[in-house]
Amino acid sequence: MIKTDIIIIGAGPTGLFTVFEAGLLKLKCHLIDALPQPGGQCSELYPKKPIYDIPGFPEILAGDLTKNLLEQGKQFEPGFTLGERAETVEKQEDGTFIVTTNKGTQHQAPVVAIASGLGSFEPRKPQLENLAKYEDKGVEYIIKEPEVYRDKDVVIAGGGDSALDWSIFLADVAKSVTLIHRRSEFRGHLDSVEKVQELKNAGKINLITPAEVTDIIGDGKVEAIEVKKKDEDAFILKTDHFIPLFGLSPKLGPIANWGLEIEKNAIKVNNALDYQTNIPGIFAIGDGNFYPGKLKLILCGFHEATIMCQAAYQIINPGKKYVLKYTTVSGIDGFDGSRKEAPKAVVQAIN
Amino acid sequence: MIKTDIIIIGAGPTGLFTVFEAGLLKLKCHLIDALPQPGGQCSELYPKKPIYDIPGFPEILAGDLTKNLLEQGKQFEPGFTLGERAETVEKQEDGTFIVTTNKGTQHQAPVVAIASGLGSFEPRKPQLENLAKYEDKGVEYIIKEPEVYRDKDVVIAGGGDSALDWSIFLADVAKSVTLIHRRSEFRGHLDSVEKVQELKNAGKINLITPAEVTDIIGDGKVEAIEVKKKDEDAFILKTDHFIPLFGLSPKLGPIANWGLEIEKNAIKVNNALDYQTNIPGIFAIGDGNFYPGKLKLILCGFHEATIMCQAAYQIINPGKKYVLKYTTVSGIDGFDGSRKEAPKAVVQAIN
Ligand SMILES: Cc1cc2nc3c(=O)[nH]c(=O)nc-3n(C[C@H](O)[C@H](O)[C@H](O)COP(=O)(O)OP(=O)(O)OC[C@H]3O[C@@H](n4cnc5c(N)ncnc54)[C@H](O)[C@@H]3O)c2cc1C
Ligand SMILES: Cc1cc2nc3c(=O)[nH]c(=O)nc-3n(C[C@H](O)[C@H](O)[C@H](O)COP(=O)(O)OP(=O)(O)OC[C@H]3O[C@@H](n4cnc5c(N)ncnc54)[C@H](O)[C@@H]3O)c2cc1C
Repeated sequence: MIKTDIIIIGAGPTGLFTVFEAGLLKLKCHLIDALPQPGGQCSELYPKKPIYDIPGFPEILAGDLTKNLLEQGKQFEPGFTLGERAETVEKQEDGTFIVTTNKGTQHQAPVVAIASGLGSFEPRKPQLENLAKYEDKGVEYIIKEPEVYRDKDVVIAGGGDSALDWSIFLADVAKSVTLIHRRSEFRGHLDSVEKVQELKNAGKINLITPAEVTDIIGDGKVEAIEVKKKDEDAFILKTDHFIPLFGLSPKLGPIANWGLEIEKNAIKVNNALDYQTNIPGIFAIGDGNFYPGKLKLILCGFHEATIMCQAAYQIINPGKKYVLKYTTVSGIDGFDGSRKEAPKAVVQAIN
Repeated sequence: MIKTDIIIIGAGPTGLFTVFEAGLLKLKCHLIDALPQPGGQCSELYPKKPIYDIPGFPEILAGDLTKNLLEQGKQFEPGFTLGERAETVEKQEDGTFIVTTNKGTQHQAPVVAIASGLGSFEPRKPQLENLAKYEDKGVEYIIKEPEVYRDKDVVIAGGGDSALDWSIFLADVAKSVTLIHRRSEFRGHLDSVEKVQELKNAGKINLITPAEVTDIIGDGKVEAIEVKKKDEDAFILKTDHFIPLFGLSPKLGPIANWGLEIEKNAIKVNNALDYQTNIPGIFAIGDGNFYPGKLKLILCGFHEATIMCQAAYQIINPGKKYVLKYTTVSGIDGFDGSRKEAPKAVVQAIN
């Protein structure tokens, strides 16, 4: 059982900034995310694109924002359960909540912050009859640990940035990389498209287009796939892994069944006070909540997280008065023993 | 008469970010501030100090935040009335407001956003009987235009960063700089204290401590001051300017009389919707507003400004539906004809 002060469901920008604001109040956080990496939409959907409306940044790449938020919160030592989906929440007699993931990992805390954005990112899957039976047995939809593919034969399917970028990356790791796409045209950053062309010319990526994977073959694990090129006969290709990278789409998922009031596919909260849901102790912040006038913007999630942490503080420290301190004036004491503070003014004679 | 879409009272971080968010909605802003420079508390009180809780910045100097916010909004070409205090607001028959400053400058717009923070910054003044009669006639409390002092004799009084930094700056501009402080110890950044010591040693700053200015002398303008050093007789010092830099303190000031509901020395707003005050068309955002759970933090002002701009849009474009666009997806069209946008993905064949 992982115990903490605030269980945060969703490690997008809102969840990540919550770690920092909670830390200022001496509260510890643990984040759960279905994705293998933090950053939510910013890291999954557009890491290399610029955002122009983060206050104080005339321009920042979504991936850099994620990096900065991780850096900003790191002295508060957040815990992470990544690659797992929060599945159930149960209120205990002592008032705490237990959140359990699809893999059975359990987390306990007096406060739950749902920062689930548009929902848990779930892979789009190809339409293949026996697909399910090979999942995690050679079929993967998300690459969590590239080392798994070292010296293996790998087939990647897809025509977007993920398929391009992972083909490039694994070309140096795997024994062989085959990229299959149902068209000859790929859609992605110019750099990535050009790099794949180059690696293909150098014989480091096998390209099969326009083509589709029509079957998976193997005894208990992937051993080969059947490929059908347009206007040609299908053929069998030996491979250890088949990785369809057709994109991830967010689904509200299990949270819809937690007894929370839902409106416009999001969780209704009390925006006039603290972004609490209809279940006391459970808050919803960021893209995942709804209230009149709600804007699904990153900067709004930051504010909601900050206000929410004050309410969490009251739940965890009942009756204790909290006086807001400016970071500039009081500095920051990390849970790791680090201290950040502004250079002090000196009082010194001039003679 | 200056006409605009939104009159913003206060050019602190909240007011400055409003320019950007309004610009995204194609609304133009004009800012009024009592200070000669934008940035509010950040530029007036702690420009060289780091802030740690601006989301995405593990650390940023308050002065750099101001610079960045100006840069972020500049393509929306905000107007500025600086060094003037907004004194009155009058609602017109056509529903617009006219805001007039203490110097008589008039501004007209359908929406007023009060981003007045802790209030209008007003100088702390020395206790000298005939002070008022020399104001703007050789006595200044804020340095707006350093060139005014070229080849003049200047006396600065004070013992903090402003007194130190302006003494250093004017040492290269004025004919002579005399720094007077009632103690021998100065309180400021180590750099500044050391630099003043150095300039004093080099004969470029005259230092008189511990001492006080006890009188001003002159016919219609400052011609000399009387200085009294501790345990010594007073003496007369010829000078063209006397600049007491004893700090600025914010005062809610004239806004208190505008018929707005005030609570905890701030303007009450509807935080459940759009941060509107009890007067429709007048909003209050940032440190200057009050609602249950209010936190006087910069990041909260950013959110409030963003939500408020949506309501301003509805007032200015009644009945028109606004669909939120992501800056990353739609880019930014400046009023100056500039365009920012993310590099587009290519669709390109790999052969
Ligand atoms: C192309 C694009 C461009 C954009 N441009 C801008 C822009 O310019 N400016 C702007 O402000 N915003 C922009 N946005 C929106 C912005 O990305 C979102 O507002 C922001 O990501 C919301 O952050 P969040 O942390 O609330 O949620 P998300 O980023 O959605 O993160 C939520 C996380 O929760 C996880 N999760 C959900 N449910 C579960 C569960 N049950 N178990 C485990 N994990 C779960 C998800 O996997 C996800 O990682 C853009 C979005 C897109 C797609
Ligand atoms: C030493 C110090 C450290 C701080 N540290 C932090 C920190 O670490 N993090 C954080 O988030 N916040 C911090 N703050 C608070 C932060 O500076 C404020 O939250 C922020 O400046 C508020 O911005 P604002 O734009 O709402 O108002 P302000 O910055 O107060 O700006 C308001 C402006 O309005 C002008 N004005 C008011 N009335 C009138 C009028 N009638 N006519 C013309 N002009 C008028 C004023 O002159 C002023 O320039 C700190 C503050 C101080 C003093």
